[in-house]
Amino acid sequence: MNSKPDAIVAQSGGPTAVINSSACGVIQEAMKSDKIGRVIGATNGILGILGEDLFDISAEKPETIEQLKQTPAAAIGSCRYKLKSLEDSKADFDRILDVFNAHNIRYFFYAGGNDSMDTADKVNKLAADAGYELVCMGIPKTVDNDLAFTDHCPGYPSVAKYVATCAMEAGRDTETLYTADTCTILEVMGRNAGWIAAATGLAARCPEDAPHLVYMPEAAFSFDKLINDVNKVLKKLGRVFIVAGEGLKNEKGEYITADKGAFSRDSFGHVQLGGVGAMLKAVIEKEVKIKARFNLLGTNQRSAMHFASLTDINEAYMCGQMAVKNALEGVNGKMVTLVREQGPQYKCTTGLAELRDVANGEKKVPREFINDKGNHITDAMRDYVRPLVQGEAPITIDEDGLPVFMRFERKPLEKKLPKYL
Amino acid sequence: MNSKPDAIVAQSGGPTAVINSSACGVIQEAMKSDKIGRVIGATNGILGILGEDLFDISAEKPETIEQLKQTPAAAIGSCRYKLKSLEDSKADFDRILDVFNAHNIRYFFYAGGNDSMDTADKVNKLAADAGYELVCMGIPKTVDNDLAFTDHCPGYPSVAKYVATCAMEAGRDTETLYTADTCTILEVMGRNAGWIAAATGLAARCPEDAPHLVYMPEAAFSFDKLINDVNKVLKKLGRVFIVAGEGLKNEKGEYITADKGAFSRDSFGHVQLGGVGAMLKAVIEKEVKIKARFNLLGTNQRSAMHFASLTDINEAYMCGQMAVKNALEGVNGKMVTLVREQGPQYKCTTGLAELRDVANGEKKVPREFINDKGNHITDAMRDYVRPLVQGEAPITIDEDGLPVFMRFERKPLEKKLPKYL
Repeated sequence: MNSKPDAIVAQSGGPTAVINSSACGVIQEAMKSDKIGRVIGATNGILGILGEDLFDISAEKPETIEQLKQTPAAAIGSCRYKLKSLEDSKADFDRILDVFNAHNIRYFFYAGGNDSMDTADKVNKLAADAGYELVCMGIPKTVDNDLAFTDHCPGYPSVAKYVATCAMEAGRDTETLYTADTCTILEVMGRNAGWIAAATGLAARCPEDAPHLVYMPEAAFSFDKLINDVNKVLKKLGRVFIVAGEGLKNEKGEYITADKGAFSRDSFGHVQLGGVGAMLKAVIEKEVKIKARFNLLGTNQRSAMHFASLTDINEAYMCGQMAVKNALEGVNGKMVTLVREQGPQYKCTTGLAELRDVANGEKKVPREFINDKGNHITDAMRDYVRPLVQGEAPITIDEDGLPVFMRFERKPLEKKLPKYL
Repeated sequence: MNSKPDAIVAQSGGPTAVINSSACGVIQEAMKSDKIGRVIGATNGILGILGEDLFDISAEKPETIEQLKQTPAAAIGSCRYKLKSLEDSKADFDRILDVFNAHNIRYFFYAGGNDSMDTADKVNKLAADAGYELVCMGIPKTVDNDLAFTDHCPGYPSVAKYVATCAMEAGRDTETLYTADTCTILEVMGRNAGWIAAATGLAARCPEDAPHLVYMPEAAFSFDKLINDVNKVLKKLGRVFIVAGEGLKNEKGEYITADKGAFSRDSFGHVQLGGVGAMLKAVIEKEVKIKARFNLLGTNQRSAMHFASLTDINEAYMCGQMAVKNALEGVNGKMVTLVREQGPQYKCTTGLAELRDVANGEKKVPREFINDKGNHITDAMRDYVRPLVQGEAPITIDEDGLPVFMRFERKPLEKKLPKYL
């Protein structure tokens, strides 16, 4: 047993290309400190804490930890386990503190979206009420880019760079084979916010360039408008490339895919979407009478390490690092934010926001980032996203010509408590 | 008017990441020769020839021509226009010779698959019968890798590298979020041949690695087998990552998607598929009772310049170059082939095959490249594909953080014939 308190690091929700960079920042910074004993990983996020499935990250090889920066998805493990209110999930919250106490964990670094910040905030309050000394720090993570109080979220710049490039590339495919494949629809992620769809707009630098139409959930969608938009582009170019966010909604605010019964809810209560691309294809083929196809990048967009944004990797690392630095300076109950400094040159520093404020907030694409017709972006959006997608991820290629990704050895911590999950 | 005969270069069928490298090889080599006048581009392949929509590629800026190597899809323009037999498409074939004659075109360089080689062969025969001096050379091009008489086809190595990387990346996503998203299906292209699906098998270096199951059209598929396979992987790993070729067939040789009526035919008479991913997802969710999702890379896989294989780019260029060199040496009616030299070190040179032989051939994934269970690849396939995916495409990034692609200025040739199309 070591006498210094341990720190735990956990990842939550949908993975990104850079959530491991944030973990790397936490781990490397915590291992430098003489106030922190070991850095403990929670296998599969909150599930790992509840199940006491923990492993000693400090015991991993330094080069494995360094390779986190080049490895997509959540190397420690993630989950979508939803904690409700302190009353409704009392047993879970108590268990978390019991596990922390059993392993002398006094620092909790949690990378995730607003549901995770909510969990971290509640754990923090419960610890305070129980007189258990604990520092809870949040690290922003979501490809959806919808967290409030931060200029942008680590994970978003990489998906933005990748989907914009995919729109360019598949756009060239349509441009050169439009006599056969006249319309292509690229369906991208974004449940409630259209940030990912909006990023693809950066690829359109002249009228010929894809995407010609970009639909985001923030602008009410109608099939009549779609058909009209498509016909206009066709008349001009003889082809059309469309980007559609998965969560397109009609004027009543209902998901356009809702009437198909083609959705279900995940364990966070979020509506799981899919099908916008297929739906648009069917409508366009029927109403406009042209051949249409759709590409559904799915989880490939959020894990595309091979073309991640270097800016994103560095900022994600900085968020992890600053979570530890702040924690060691006595800050508690905050999420690290990214702050875009004023000035002509892009410069990003970090700030802090209350976990509870982040938990309750949501940031959509502002109206001034979307054009009047609701079918593309404005220069304001271009100016917002351009600095984020600068730089390419350094990747190591092995003898198979493929990227090298790390895996932890996962030396498990001995369980000290009765089985829970 | 210049007195030297002109050469025409045309692209056909589905684009690839490197069909423009082949065009670059043709153009740069032809422009070096004092036997060839201008290099003429046929806008949208055979449609451009029939419609006399031609432009002077020799008049383009040298840097634009050089940038072809970094630009995906068919920059000259492609189509899926199908020429039938000499009898059934006599007017079209006659028109092609009329257009060649009107512009003093004596070299025809045609990049495409077996349908295109068939067209080139027929044009060649017709010219010979008519006493019109013409050299017709084919350049192999297909992501499907299904042309006979060539070790592999330019375009395939790049899609192989990209989809294998996508399987690794989305595989890590599933590996780290399997408690929520337990099964992921990656649907890839490959109408009749499973080469693209097979390439993803290279990513699986240990039992943990995705893909765990690889289904190719060459091995009869059954849903009973699928469910059995999935359950076995689940028992071992708690998750499963599946790659499925779009053209999976049952034991009777029928497309598994056929009974849904979800397919149509393109103008070449090929069945246009899609829906294998969605179908497997539905069956797995219903029968295995786990959450499944599918990614459909679609045209993004064949246009993924940003992670193309450098080997592929270089070999594609060599094919274009060798088509011209051979033509200038008096070779006619052949397609350039890629020849893998014997020996421990990969070395690729070019050979020649009769256009008519290529037109009638088809190369599927051999049985010894597929494992006994028909659900993954063997080391023989790994050894085949590994050398092809070596090296990464050099890409130029602009101030928006996105790749730079070229477009031709397209100085049109004056039309000399009556309108045809």
